[in-house]
Amino acid sequence: MHYHQFAHSQVSYPQAVKELQTLGFLTEIDLENTTPNSLWLNLVAMTFCQAKTPLAKQAYLANLLARPNQTLLEFAANNTLETEAFYAVALQLLGFEVGVDFEVAESLEFMETVGLKSHNQVQTVEELLLAWYDLLELPRKNGQSFLDYLATQGFFLPMYNLPAKKKPQFYNGKSLPIFDTSQLIYEVVYVESDLDTDHDGRRDLLQVQIIRPKDTEAGLRVPAVFTASPYNRGTNPELGQKLTHNVDVPLIRKEPNQVSYQDIHAPHQLPPAPEGRLLNGHSKEATESFDHSFTYSLNNYLLARGFAVVYAAGIGTRGSEGLRTCGSVAETASTTAIIEWLNGKRPAFTDRTSNRAINAWWCNGAVAMTGKSYLGTLANAAATTGVEGLKTIIAEAAISSWYDYYRDGGLVVAPGGFPGEDADVLAGECLSRMKDAGDFLNVQSQAEQTLATIKVQQDRQSGNYNQFWDARNYLNDSAQVKCDVMLVHGLNDWNVKPRNVYNFYKALSKLPIATKLVLHQGQHIYINNFRSLDFNQMVNLWLSNHLYDCQNDAVATLPNVVVQDNVQAEKWHSLEAWEADSNLEVFNFNPKHLTNAKSQGGQVSFKDQLPPADFDHYKQDWTAWKTDLVKEESPLTHNRLLFATDILKEDLTLQGAPRLKLKIKSNQNVGMVSAMLVDLGKAKRLGEVPTVLDRQSLGLGYHWHTEDLVEFTLAQESDFKLISKGHRNLQNRTSLWQNDELEADTFYQVNFDLQPSFYTIPAGRKLGLIIYATDMEMTVRGNQDLTYTLQLEDCQLQFLKHN
Amino acid sequence: MHYHQFAHSQVSYPQAVKELQTLGFLTEIDLENTTPNSLWLNLVAMTFCQAKTPLAKQAYLANLLARPNQTLLEFAANNTLETEAFYAVALQLLGFEVGVDFEVAESLEFMETVGLKSHNQVQTVEELLLAWYDLLELPRKNGQSFLDYLATQGFFLPMYNLPAKKKPQFYNGKSLPIFDTSQLIYEVVYVESDLDTDHDGRRDLLQVQIIRPKDTEAGLRVPAVFTASPYNRGTNPELGQKLTHNVDVPLIRKEPNQVSYQDIHAPHQLPPAPEGRLLNGHSKEATESFDHSFTYSLNNYLLARGFAVVYAAGIGTRGSEGLRTCGSVAETASTTAIIEWLNGKRPAFTDRTSNRAINAWWCNGAVAMTGKSYLGTLANAAATTGVEGLKTIIAEAAISSWYDYYRDGGLVVAPGGFPGEDADVLAGECLSRMKDAGDFLNVQSQAEQTLATIKVQQDRQSGNYNQFWDARNYLNDSAQVKCDVMLVHGLNDWNVKPRNVYNFYKALSKLPIATKLVLHQGQHIYINNFRSLDFNQMVNLWLSNHLYDCQNDAVATLPNVVVQDNVQAEKWHSLEAWEADSNLEVFNFNPKHLTNAKSQGGQVSFKDQLPPADFDHYKQDWTAWKTDLVKEESPLTHNRLLFATDILKEDLTLQGAPRLKLKIKSNQNVGMVSAMLVDLGKAKRLGEVPTVLDRQSLGLGYHWHTEDLVEFTLAQESDFKLISKGHRNLQNRTSLWQNDELEADTFYQVNFDLQPSFYTIPAGRKLGLIIYATDMEMTVRGNQDLTYTLQLEDCQLQFLKHN
Repeated sequence: MHYHQFAHSQVSYPQAVKELQTLGFLTEIDLENTTPNSLWLNLVAMTFCQAKTPLAKQAYLANLLARPNQTLLEFAANNTLETEAFYAVALQLLGFEVGVDFEVAESLEFMETVGLKSHNQVQTVEELLLAWYDLLELPRKNGQSFLDYLATQGFFLPMYNLPAKKKPQFYNGKSLPIFDTSQLIYEVVYVESDLDTDHDGRRDLLQVQIIRPKDTEAGLRVPAVFTASPYNRGTNPELGQKLTHNVDVPLIRKEPNQVSYQDIHAPHQLPPAPEGRLLNGHSKEATESFDHSFTYSLNNYLLARGFAVVYAAGIGTRGSEGLRTCGSVAETASTTAIIEWLNGKRPAFTDRTSNRAINAWWCNGAVAMTGKSYLGTLANAAATTGVEGLKTIIAEAAISSWYDYYRDGGLVVAPGGFPGEDADVLAGECLSRMKDAGDFLNVQSQAEQTLATIKVQQDRQSGNYNQFWDARNYLNDSAQVKCDVMLVHGLNDWNVKPRNVYNFYKALSKLPIATKLVLHQGQHIYINNFRSLDFNQMVNLWLSNHLYDCQNDAVATLPNVVVQDNVQAEKWHSLEAWEADSNLEVFNFNPKHLTNAKSQGGQVSFKDQLPPADFDHYKQDWTAWKTDLVKEESPLTHNRLLFATDILKEDLTLQGAPRLKLKIKSNQNVGMVSAMLVDLGKAKRLGEVPTVLDRQSLGLGYHWHTEDLVEFTLAQESDFKLISKGHRNLQNRTSLWQNDELEADTFYQVNFDLQPSFYTIPAGRKLGLIIYATDMEMTVRGNQDLTYTLQLEDCQLQFLKHN
Repeated sequence: MHYHQFAHSQVSYPQAVKELQTLGFLTEIDLENTTPNSLWLNLVAMTFCQAKTPLAKQAYLANLLARPNQTLLEFAANNTLETEAFYAVALQLLGFEVGVDFEVAESLEFMETVGLKSHNQVQTVEELLLAWYDLLELPRKNGQSFLDYLATQGFFLPMYNLPAKKKPQFYNGKSLPIFDTSQLIYEVVYVESDLDTDHDGRRDLLQVQIIRPKDTEAGLRVPAVFTASPYNRGTNPELGQKLTHNVDVPLIRKEPNQVSYQDIHAPHQLPPAPEGRLLNGHSKEATESFDHSFTYSLNNYLLARGFAVVYAAGIGTRGSEGLRTCGSVAETASTTAIIEWLNGKRPAFTDRTSNRAINAWWCNGAVAMTGKSYLGTLANAAATTGVEGLKTIIAEAAISSWYDYYRDGGLVVAPGGFPGEDADVLAGECLSRMKDAGDFLNVQSQAEQTLATIKVQQDRQSGNYNQFWDARNYLNDSAQVKCDVMLVHGLNDWNVKPRNVYNFYKALSKLPIATKLVLHQGQHIYINNFRSLDFNQMVNLWLSNHLYDCQNDAVATLPNVVVQDNVQAEKWHSLEAWEADSNLEVFNFNPKHLTNAKSQGGQVSFKDQLPPADFDHYKQDWTAWKTDLVKEESPLTHNRLLFATDILKEDLTLQGAPRLKLKIKSNQNVGMVSAMLVDLGKAKRLGEVPTVLDRQSLGLGYHWHTEDLVEFTLAQESDFKLISKGHRNLQNRTSLWQNDELEADTFYQVNFDLQPSFYTIPAGRKLGLIIYATDMEMTVRGNQDLTYTLQLEDCQLQFLKHN
């Protein structure tokens, strides 16, 4: 167990007293005439909020030890308040177990060990209240803040009934869970976009699902947390399967050409829209409700805390009109249309037929976007339009350029685990409008045509960056981002690879906005349920500031970059920037060896082709393939080049995107090169998937949704771990859009970046580099008779090393 | 996909009309003057309950196809109602997708294929209403009944407000989800037991957590579904770890003796209790609430349907008094005490100190018990007391005798996966009272003494059945069971092994009560979320009958025995009895061979001891051990005897408990024998763990808890599957309590039963029998120099074969 609190701030004594009054802790207390002991007992008793009478609370107070052989009651009757006893009791309130987690006589040492902040002295009333103020935000044993736990116990029930004009309330700059989640209003409206993607001559209507606190009916105007999820109304796995491309095809030579970026640049423009619908009256009341079957726990957390939550699946999804086009300008516009409606700039209707308009009258006009993967991608997309009303995005594991999702280095490179997937496949999978057979009857042929067009335009033949991909590159518009941004990404995410967040982060860093970055050791996951990090609190602080204008100094309080350690579990670093405090590290190549010294030159070769049985085995078992690729001796020994440093004498931390410079030749006039950076050496490393510590144990409110508690824990001993990867078509030496000449048996210089990371190889292990060609999990798998040779003195690996 | 509806009954037309009126389907319809088409459109439109106006419903009706190229609206305008169109629309309402799951023109064929019952003709108003009546109970694509799905959409919201005296309401004999789960009352009381297990001179108070519908405040009296879960208030894994026994100890020779059952019989009696507390007034209102953090989805399902749910963790758990004693008579009494309070026969208090009494005034006095494993075990225990008020139990994967959980055949035999666990370990793990350090201070030494006593009495030295185990054998009291019983067990449950349910089922079958049995292909799991079985409906029917006295013919409607097929996924059989329609199958032994012919005699031997490296490997990797044990050639070839039948020419279905008769000798004066029955032959078999088909997709009510949808699916090809297992100490030939003489190198006849099953070995495979000694996962592992020899002509395997 180790805890990190990035979202907590120290406050003055008067401020602490004021906020404790807000919570009702001081309601029946005469601060002038109380003793520290009596105040202490009162405060503790109030936390047993499920016991409603003094007699019912009695047993709970008697359950707590203040000294090894003295209960709180006995101690308080016979001694004056002291720091050690205060924290012994505090730890029990936080759910730590005496004799299991800590010893009563060693409460302060325990707190220090696990990273819980304590006050030096807790003896006077003032010291007690300041310590109590901070205690309420401390993480409990399961990582949940004490206040969030109290929320699950019904502590805030009395505040549900505060008048609308007294809501929200904040504690330490974060909105309190005083909104009744059993009384939420669920409603559906249909926003009219400027699009006609199904070419039926009418503007595409977009179904929007809204969840808002009942207090809005009494006049409270709340901000909207909007998640644009194309998966929200279902998917078509069967169609996706059908559209999936065969990747067991050869790498094909590309005809050399001269192409400039201007030739393939795609302006982000929409075709003119048909006329809008004529409004037929106006209503304040929605006529449709919905089933909250899709749940996203961060949003549910926020619902209890005074934020409305809005879901829209976008064009081509069930309940909406239009067709899906995978990351296109139209999909961006179908996302910002919702924000424009929330901000009062665009009409919506109560249903798909009446033309009866309905406003987002309950909304204060401030919108944030949340979500992971495609959902976060659409948040990125919306931010790059600079749309009014969008105050911030929290984009997790999001794509910043679709080329970096489905392509790499002039090659078709699938997201990890999804060979054969491409833009057309995803468009088909998300076309959930298909599920309503009667509705789909009218657009079926148009839908088929749209998918066929994407199939052509994405161009799996060349793998080049072209107009199709340029139209889907949000980085082109990054300068238009006006709102502050929080980015979250897994350093082991081989689905949406880290380059996506790296490029966006670097582009945003140049702008006059605040950008916050959280890099974790996960794959493609959410991180709002880790014991070691107060992520929910960070988000609450951030959104209270950006959406409710709470003056909580959120931008200054949160670190610019938070990075999870890859060696030690439950450890997070805060940094100024991804690549802060670094200098360039350069490795030269000798056979099997990476060295800081000068290369001794020479040539080494590997072939790509495998015996058919091995090929079949590896294409089905990627773990075996990866293991054998990295092993010293394996059936793949001749199918790759393995270079390794000497055993490291001190820890080596790599930051940012490693650059690989290779002098390479192919025995044919076609070729690709792949590279993996690995951490070599037997060791217990963090598991790839978070361990579920306690199922559904994190309550997000009172009798409200729950979430699993998870954490990365050390896994079984392993021989290596992947740090980074990269791929390059040898015909894309100049750019991703131009085909260079490639003559057989001729050396060329090929330089390219691997995926960025932040990775520490501890002393005692080695940094390894594997050069190979076909990637069983990601590239096409032609199993061609290709042999590649490196000219070692002209090869180099460079990266930024953390000082 | 294949569906089974065991809980649905046909009703008469007037009954159907009456119940459809209850649901509000016919409220605005003049049945005399409607056309089938207009009625059909009306009924369908009403199911889109989230669209509240006709205009809002319009788009939903337009989404449905009645013919391949005609929507429901177009069809109904131009044609009269016909059967095929009715079911085409019905299937879409049930969530099946056109073009993916079925073709519109083939709706009736599809229904037959997947086991959905249709009516032959749906043309007239009467036919329409009868078909509609049944449609509402049909499973949707995800297995959930249409009505249960409509509940998640808010269909029943209007009925939430029915007056208390009009609740509950039933449809097809099952209570309807018309209870507002957002308004449930959560309260805690403390029942006074007749026990003083912590020897503090006061009767142990037992904390009870109650969840009841708000309608009880308006006069409705509801039944209680009670789950006695010792895990409910937390567990002590650290203490459990500390108490766990070393199993790498030798099997020890037992001194021969003469012991009769009378010598070890333990009458199920309690010591006299101290005086009860003096009541200090009376209250109708509880003064304590609780957090519903422990959730059990079957109970949550029932909460929406008018059943109160009651949890109690029992003596020695957090919030209660007393100490845990693992399955003892005291634990049974601490369970029935709750029922007695619910039935008005025992006092409870609002808290642990005031002595203020509180009745279960909201309860109609009828109680059912639910739960799996230890929870189901306590249901079994309570049923065998014949306690008044207990109307039925639904015991899943429950223990019927603790000897059958921690022992077998005169040996210490752990539950699968938990070597070294024993009664004292479980008592320590469940002693959650420890978590309140102040409370525990007073009982710590008594608690340690109690655990030490259990450690002695459970007697790991002999492994014999003794007074300790006889006191924990509920079968002794099975004749006292007065209520109807539903038993559920996994045929692959190696934690609570199937003998537990088999023995209880056989004992109950002799009584004048109704006993229902569901045997599934799972391990130690709940089954209320399988697509292929209407388990929730079965339970609802059963409880509506037993607790609400609804005259729904539940006993006649549900099959006596439902068994899940082990060969084909999603197939359930209904039978009269576990061993119905069977005759005795006998196999004789030849070397490596099981035969129906006469044995040719001879002797074969195996040794128990392994080289230390192999021993260490297998004790850590049970899967490797099991695989090598069954393999033709492996490092374990000489450590077991493998017998197999010829390849089966026709399917062979084994029922009940196989009996093994062995003539065996040991080379020392100590010995044990283990046996496994296996299904041999390469095949795809059902996976051991259900596949999650759709996470949290089953709504249990409106904005209420959700549950994963699961199903057993065919796993990767495997070489064998375990059917049954058994173990015997060679010194327990006469009984489980007497030590027989065992001389080295002397043959003895040892007969014993393996775990019961219901298993089909398809034609083309073989039945295998493995005879071995040490079981790496279950027995002690002495790695002793023991050699065993079988006299083949005196060995036999017998079992009942299904005709």
